[in-house]
Amino acid sequence: MDATVETSLENLWSWQEDFYKESHRHPELSMQEEQTASRIEKELEGLGLASRRFGGTGVVSVIENGEGPVVLARADIDALPVTEDPVADYRSQADGVMHACGHDFHFSALLGAVRALVEAKQAWSGTYIALFQPGEEAADGARSMLRDGLADAVPRPDVALGQHVMPGIAGQLGVLGGPILSQGDSVHITLHGRGAHGSMPHNAVDPVVLAADIVVRLQQIVSREIQPGTFSVLTVGSLVAGTKSNIIPSTAELRVNLRHYDTDVRDHVIGSLERIVRAECEAAGCPRQPEFEYYDQYPLTDNDAEQAERIRGAFEEAFEDGQVVTPPRQTASEDFSNIPDAFGAPYVYWIVGGTDPGTYRAAVENGTVAQDVPANHQSGFVPELHPTLEVMTRAQVVAALAYLGSRP
Amino acid sequence: MDATVETSLENLWSWQEDFYKESHRHPELSMQEEQTASRIEKELEGLGLASRRFGGTGVVSVIENGEGPVVLARADIDALPVTEDPVADYRSQADGVMHACGHDFHFSALLGAVRALVEAKQAWSGTYIALFQPGEEAADGARSMLRDGLADAVPRPDVALGQHVMPGIAGQLGVLGGPILSQGDSVHITLHGRGAHGSMPHNAVDPVVLAADIVVRLQQIVSREIQPGTFSVLTVGSLVAGTKSNIIPSTAELRVNLRHYDTDVRDHVIGSLERIVRAECEAAGCPRQPEFEYYDQYPLTDNDAEQAERIRGAFEEAFEDGQVVTPPRQTASEDFSNIPDAFGAPYVYWIVGGTDPGTYRAAVENGTVAQDVPANHQSGFVPELHPTLEVMTRAQVVAALAYLGSRP
Amino acid sequence: MDATVETSLENLWSWQEDFYKESHRHPELSMQEEQTASRIEKELEGLGLASRRFGGTGVVSVIENGEGPVVLARADIDALPVTEDPVADYRSQADGVMHACGHDFHFSALLGAVRALVEAKQAWSGTYIALFQPGEEAADGARSMLRDGLADAVPRPDVALGQHVMPGIAGQLGVLGGPILSQGDSVHITLHGRGAHGSMPHNAVDPVVLAADIVVRLQQIVSREIQPGTFSVLTVGSLVAGTKSNIIPSTAELRVNLRHYDTDVRDHVIGSLERIVRAECEAAGCPRQPEFEYYDQYPLTDNDAEQAERIRGAFEEAFEDGQVVTPPRQTASEDFSNIPDAFGAPYVYWIVGGTDPGTYRAAVENGTVAQDVPANHQSGFVPELHPTLEVMTRAQVVAALAYLGSRP
Amino acid sequence: MDATVETSLENLWSWQEDFYKESHRHPELSMQEEQTASRIEKELEGLGLASRRFGGTGVVSVIENGEGPVVLARADIDALPVTEDPVADYRSQADGVMHACGHDFHFSALLGAVRALVEAKQAWSGTYIALFQPGEEAADGARSMLRDGLADAVPRPDVALGQHVMPGIAGQLGVLGGPILSQGDSVHITLHGRGAHGSMPHNAVDPVVLAADIVVRLQQIVSREIQPGTFSVLTVGSLVAGTKSNIIPSTAELRVNLRHYDTDVRDHVIGSLERIVRAECEAAGCPRQPEFEYYDQYPLTDNDAEQAERIRGAFEEAFEDGQVVTPPRQTASEDFSNIPDAFGAPYVYWIVGGTDPGTYRAAVENGTVAQDVPANHQSGFVPELHPTLEVMTRAQVVAALAYLGSRP
Repeated sequence: MDATVETSLENLWSWQEDFYKESHRHPELSMQEEQTASRIEKELEGLGLASRRFGGTGVVSVIENGEGPVVLARADIDALPVTEDPVADYRSQADGVMHACGHDFHFSALLGAVRALVEAKQAWSGTYIALFQPGEEAADGARSMLRDGLADAVPRPDVALGQHVMPGIAGQLGVLGGPILSQGDSVHITLHGRGAHGSMPHNAVDPVVLAADIVVRLQQIVSREIQPGTFSVLTVGSLVAGTKSNIIPSTAELRVNLRHYDTDVRDHVIGSLERIVRAECEAAGCPRQPEFEYYDQYPLTDNDAEQAERIRGAFEEAFEDGQVVTPPRQTASEDFSNIPDAFGAPYVYWIVGGTDPGTYRAAVENGTVAQDVPANHQSGFVPELHPTLEVMTRAQVVAALAYLGSRP
Repeated sequence: MDATVETSLENLWSWQEDFYKESHRHPELSMQEEQTASRIEKELEGLGLASRRFGGTGVVSVIENGEGPVVLARADIDALPVTEDPVADYRSQADGVMHACGHDFHFSALLGAVRALVEAKQAWSGTYIALFQPGEEAADGARSMLRDGLADAVPRPDVALGQHVMPGIAGQLGVLGGPILSQGDSVHITLHGRGAHGSMPHNAVDPVVLAADIVVRLQQIVSREIQPGTFSVLTVGSLVAGTKSNIIPSTAELRVNLRHYDTDVRDHVIGSLERIVRAECEAAGCPRQPEFEYYDQYPLTDNDAEQAERIRGAFEEAFEDGQVVTPPRQTASEDFSNIPDAFGAPYVYWIVGGTDPGTYRAAVENGTVAQDVPANHQSGFVPELHPTLEVMTRAQVVAALAYLGSRP
Repeated sequence: MDATVETSLENLWSWQEDFYKESHRHPELSMQEEQTASRIEKELEGLGLASRRFGGTGVVSVIENGEGPVVLARADIDALPVTEDPVADYRSQADGVMHACGHDFHFSALLGAVRALVEAKQAWSGTYIALFQPGEEAADGARSMLRDGLADAVPRPDVALGQHVMPGIAGQLGVLGGPILSQGDSVHITLHGRGAHGSMPHNAVDPVVLAADIVVRLQQIVSREIQPGTFSVLTVGSLVAGTKSNIIPSTAELRVNLRHYDTDVRDHVIGSLERIVRAECEAAGCPRQPEFEYYDQYPLTDNDAEQAERIRGAFEEAFEDGQVVTPPRQTASEDFSNIPDAFGAPYVYWIVGGTDPGTYRAAVENGTVAQDVPANHQSGFVPELHPTLEVMTRAQVVAALAYLGSRP
Repeated sequence: MDATVETSLENLWSWQEDFYKESHRHPELSMQEEQTASRIEKELEGLGLASRRFGGTGVVSVIENGEGPVVLARADIDALPVTEDPVADYRSQADGVMHACGHDFHFSALLGAVRALVEAKQAWSGTYIALFQPGEEAADGARSMLRDGLADAVPRPDVALGQHVMPGIAGQLGVLGGPILSQGDSVHITLHGRGAHGSMPHNAVDPVVLAADIVVRLQQIVSREIQPGTFSVLTVGSLVAGTKSNIIPSTAELRVNLRHYDTDVRDHVIGSLERIVRAECEAAGCPRQPEFEYYDQYPLTDNDAEQAERIRGAFEEAFEDGQVVTPPRQTASEDFSNIPDAFGAPYVYWIVGGTDPGTYRAAVENGTVAQDVPANHQSGFVPELHPTLEVMTRAQVVAALAYLGSRP
């Protein structure tokens, strides 16, 4: 890598560590990231960069540096309603709120990359768009920025970049072409039966039995309708009906989650889900149609194969042997791809390990990863600061330069 | 009927109406009937009668009046956590508490009967035990009196009497030999699965699907194991599992209610219920056994056939043609029979209609009883004062005199 | 009873025993009762009576004997495809065919009654219709006689009589007003899925899983839709789908049997059955609608209460103390009532025990009736000849004379 | 390829076409392949080769040709109980028996390869084992040869080779490392309930409902227990219980088929299958344990990755551009791998298309492959003779020479 960039990266760690810890201490919930957005704006301003808000607490800065491609790099900035375990000395000072998904790593790394690129402007040419996105956990932050005019306000990127810290050897980079994060859908289904005293089932249309029938029946979508070996998850995470033993309630509520890597399969499953629920309500003789409310809908994160190959190549050159791996597809979901999709732009989303290597390797060996390694959204998920943050910062720079760095 | 008794009954209405309205205005929840018990004690004292507390708020007065049989008459005194509809001018003044099951009719009538019998002592001979029971709605009031020594403190009754007001033509008396109220059992079942992220069902033992399997499977007890035509109700009134769509919870909770007229059938159903739940947990590979907690267990109310015939005869003589009927078995439950069962004494429990006759007849004709006639436990259940209260008072006297009135 | 009748009855035993044994030796399947019908016609002719065929092998003789009521007595004449156990010395000589339902007792008794009534014509007045019905086991014999003009060819009866031998103390008569035999319906349901190789469920609409869903779901009609305590049976006696493990078949077949004492309940169950099956086929995404074929449909046998009381009184007078009892409702079915229903005539159908008293009482005591006492349709069901046949003959005469015997 | 081999291959077509047609006309069922084995022996003899029988109708010839590796090539020889559609002029002359799985292609090609190799002995060095296996369709042919001592009678091969003709562009070769054919298991499950008259479910343990419960419950293995995206098929191909609507039978029978590419997953599924069936029988209160009979068990066909690469390379060199492809895993199963597994030898099993290219491409375009292209086991499955048979013969030679052809 260009020596100026290298020097710039080396010089920013002390600033970056402070910035990260400050951010970790002050997490904010989705779409309420006021302080976070202000802190980011202040840093950009300090670098002499203009920025603009989108969707309330989203911050975008477009850095033009001559002719060349347009690269968009995105980091999400919101935290979760989780009470932090006392793992590190820089723990959250907000009651019941925590950066339990590691987004503080994401935006600290992106700010670091901006800093390095601004300081080494002679090393590249083109346009770099730094995008700080709110509300990823609410599945609506990317869309809120787009609704606020993002797509008309910035140039169409040639490629969009995103990354996520997660359990794995700290600093290990996982790059995969094609689907890497699943498409996620949640459905809230309300069933309308008819209530009655518990001793008079003949006066009721029992929604408890109906809900049970439906949960059992829905299993047959994955077991019979989906081609064996195709990834498709249908989970009924919640079934709530009635409060007393001797009163047949009049409604029941199901909350269903779907995960897919293939939108056709997902569409088929949603069609079958609705068909089965409606038919079961008919079988039960329900007085009213069931209601379906879709929420927390995450798009598929489907890396462009060619661009993923390009970035993987750049990573392999810039990092150590064995540091870049091919990860399995992740069952988690993200709203990142809404942004490149709005531009019709290809994108690459990679993952970075954040666990102490000794701990991780021992857990893999013992088959106790699930128990011993804190995962995203858990109260003990505080990734190793070193080398994770440096690697994530450098990764953003390396990936950007794979497009912008061809200056002769 | 003896003229003295008749006169005494006629003279007590004005006192009784006031007492009833005062009682209706001041309902108290199960096992908290302090004011109610005190008011009853004060009335008994006014009649020169000693009384004693059992089970905290239970009141018993033993009226000895020469040789003869022992009759025990019981009235329950507790109210319900229901907010009263503004039906009458004497509505409840206790927030969210209401005599929505008509127990104020029961104890007002029993106090009236005591008054009439005390004033007409020359008309009967024997012992009359007036028993005011708390906590019927909690299924534990009768047992709490027995635990407090009731059975050793009063003479063994030759017969025990109880009555209940309910929807039906006001003042109509229903007497039935054999089972009249069902045996009721509630079971709270906790299922222990293993939680996991919604996208990783293979790491879970899904308690939502397990609970659904169980609800579906339990239907086969009534449909296949019980002799066709035999009364047996198994209702899962509540199924609660999970809160979010994308988290497979680790437990699920069922609340089941059972109703029977035959204890052998009930025992069979409980055996099958436990067998099925345990086996389904095994089928699911649960890490822990399910838990069964039984509560709100009501005994069978099984009228002695001979005594029911005797009381029915007395009623037919004392009331008008058509006023005494043979009701169908009721699916409701009561803890009354715990008391005579503790003495090994026969008992008769009858029911009394409390609805305006025109309203009731029209509803029957239109097939709209369920909608148009307020039923016990509903916020609009305030029985017609006249003639219901007079009939219930007279019925207690007539039934007592069927045993005690044979003085030459 | 009139002495002439008594004498006549006493004189016919030796003829009757021969006739019965001959009949038992030569059973004929439903609607193929050619020999049996001829033997009956020959006997009637021997008594100087005219007779006429209806429905091929049905035989009817109308015996007019002056003014008076019209009584119709019916006996069924067909046998079953059962290979007889070697119980008696007069066993069936037809291969694989046996009078395993005791119809040979029915028509032997009716012929005996005709003989006694013809010989004692001075003891009664009115019209006696002796009706020998084919094809009861096929549920179509009564209807075949009616289709052949029966209702227009004979006078409308004032009452119709029928009886059946079954397990119970030999010679004990059971008379019950109201429903005594259930209404029976059979349904053959064909489900149309789509076949595929067993390893490709996504290409199939799996009718095996669909059929299982339906069988499970149908349980909820009895468990939830029918008023607790109401007799309603829904049995899926047969489920047949596929032949090989690795081929998903394209169809599945269910055979369902329904039993009811209340036609409204039965109609409700059929409605629910069809609703559920259709809805489940929709839930499964079947390419074709399911098919319902109803067969073996038996009407309700619902004795007229007043006439049953009259016959019971006559029986109590004519038989010994304890010989006439009130039986429980029987779950079996009969097509007898089709005949009186065609005339709008009341009817009484009674049952007669045919088991050795010692054997029966011991089995009841040991709770082994199901194992130790051969029941109708079983290969060992050969009722005790004495006194069963005499009682059944006398019962027909006594019941007839309850209407015809009032000659001064 | 060596010119001698090439010439030899070119010279054998006319003999081979006759031999193939003769074989197609005379198919024989599994383990009854007497004529077929004799015809093969006669051909081998004509080439001056000794052969030996294993497992009755299995034929093996070991061709030693100096130093070098040992290659085993296997062809299966049995036919199916299928009546052939009149597709070709050389159709089956055996009633109801047909080479509907294309095994006649397999052994004709192997014999052709033997002929070419024998004629061009100077072109290779080592040992070639030609193995003609009976009874593949019965899942027991390979095992029957091994039980007969095969593993001790021939040298341990360095590699084993097999191939199969199937739908696809005629002459296209599919080579894949790792699992290519699934592991297949069939289970015959007998459930023991207790029979009763259909109107008396309380006397029964209903095996129809139990079987339905089990079929429904088994769906949850794939939907919940298997990691999403992992290939696992559990098909209940047959459920047979009862024959009449009004008799509850005493048993029910299920036939289940399993398909897997991972033996651990398969073992897990079998464990869950047995656990669920046993637990459901307990839930039902069965009087006897269920019975499990495993049959038609096919091993996993799991190509050695390195050898598959080697053969793929040799094919790419020997055939035209685009003729060698990477096929998807096949859900079918084979008993081929039992033979190399007995020696602990690596193996490669490839597939060859046999459909007219125009027909196949049109069907793919129209999405009508399932309807328009006859597949194995169907009555119209007669692969295109040219170029399929030539390609299969050449493929056997090329694959063998990839090991044996390194003679300087």
